[in-house]
Amino acid sequence: MSHLEKFEEKTIGTRTIYQGKIITVELDDVILPDGKSAKRELVRHPGAVAVIPILEDGRIVLVEQYRKALGKAMLEVPAGKLEPGEAPEVTARRELEEETGYACDELIAVTSFATSPGFADEVVHVFAAKGLNAVENPLQGDEDEFVELHEVTLEEAEEMVADGRIFDAKTAFSILWAKGARNVR
Amino acid sequence: MSHLEKFEEKTIGTRTIYQGKIITVELDDVILPDGKSAKRELVRHPGAVAVIPILEDGRIVLVEQYRKALGKAMLEVPAGKLEPGEAPEVTARRELEEETGYACDELIAVTSFATSPGFADEVVHVFAAKGLNAVENPLQGDEDEFVELHEVTLEEAEEMVADGRIFDAKTAFSILWAKGARNVR
Repeated sequence: MSHLEKFEEKTIGTRTIYQGKIITVELDDVILPDGKSAKRELVRHPGAVAVIPILEDGRIVLVEQYRKALGKAMLEVPAGKLEPGEAPEVTARRELEEETGYACDELIAVTSFATSPGFADEVVHVFAAKGLNAVENPLQGDEDEFVELHEVTLEEAEEMVADGRIFDAKTAFSILWAKGARNVR
Repeated sequence: MSHLEKFEEKTIGTRTIYQGKIITVELDDVILPDGKSAKRELVRHPGAVAVIPILEDGRIVLVEQYRKALGKAMLEVPAGKLEPGEAPEVTARRELEEETGYACDELIAVTSFATSPGFADEVVHVFAAKGLNAVENPLQGDEDEFVELHEVTLEEAEEMVADGRIFDAKTAFSILWAKGARNVR
């Protein structure tokens, strides 16, 4: 690969519009590959993990919580933000315990992806968790988080993606991945 | 379902922090289900489409473009933002033509999902496009978009997800979906 990324946009100015608790918003001035200039609206995010908790019988554990951005309760795999400097594996184990009460014997790195590369730098690290065992006094989640657990078969989960009851990118990916992984075994 | 969404957060104040060309940033004050208050940082986005272009031989067409938010060139399925009031099918056909030069005989609605429900309301509508045919004078994309096409087999694409060359949520989902759809047929 060359020292320049393909079609690289050179940053000639960065203005921080908003520095929040979770996101930072920047407006960058860039020079395009053809020499013209453009503005880029960017959301900086610390990154997150998603965990696919797979029970002995093959069912997966989903978490239902209200999402203010969408204005509705959503069914998702357990997930949470990285703390500064934290290894994604550590975040994954913590969020799994906080949101489901489970620890796991095996944590498998599945993949990582950017959720909205057009405007955000958020990267989600996806793990599968097996060998789940209920923790006696599990870690408590953030005090502004209210969640409800659902244990569903992969067939049920697939239907929920098809009919819109599951409406979250990382969760839709996780279900297809879990199904493929089962077929391989 | 009750008239209230599960764990609904009641909005008691909304402040617009930034109104950009693509995103709007809001800071909301909410009342949690336990009566406590909290702040929610929200990014409003018009929504987008993603199209999985499937060639006669089963290969799919990916688009490589520089993504300023991530600071690198990324391989993705063709995608683009909804114009105000535009039906996702219309956006899908336009973005397919602009980014790949193809029209399609068949456009199949696959699913829709939120990309980052923790802070953004962006919804991506995913379509599969079959019966691809090259358009003689295709629509031109935005003048600040520089893209390069790659035609890859699903097996190559799966490897690219595994080794990180594909690093985009909607694209990772699309590849698993296309593989599952092929297995069903």
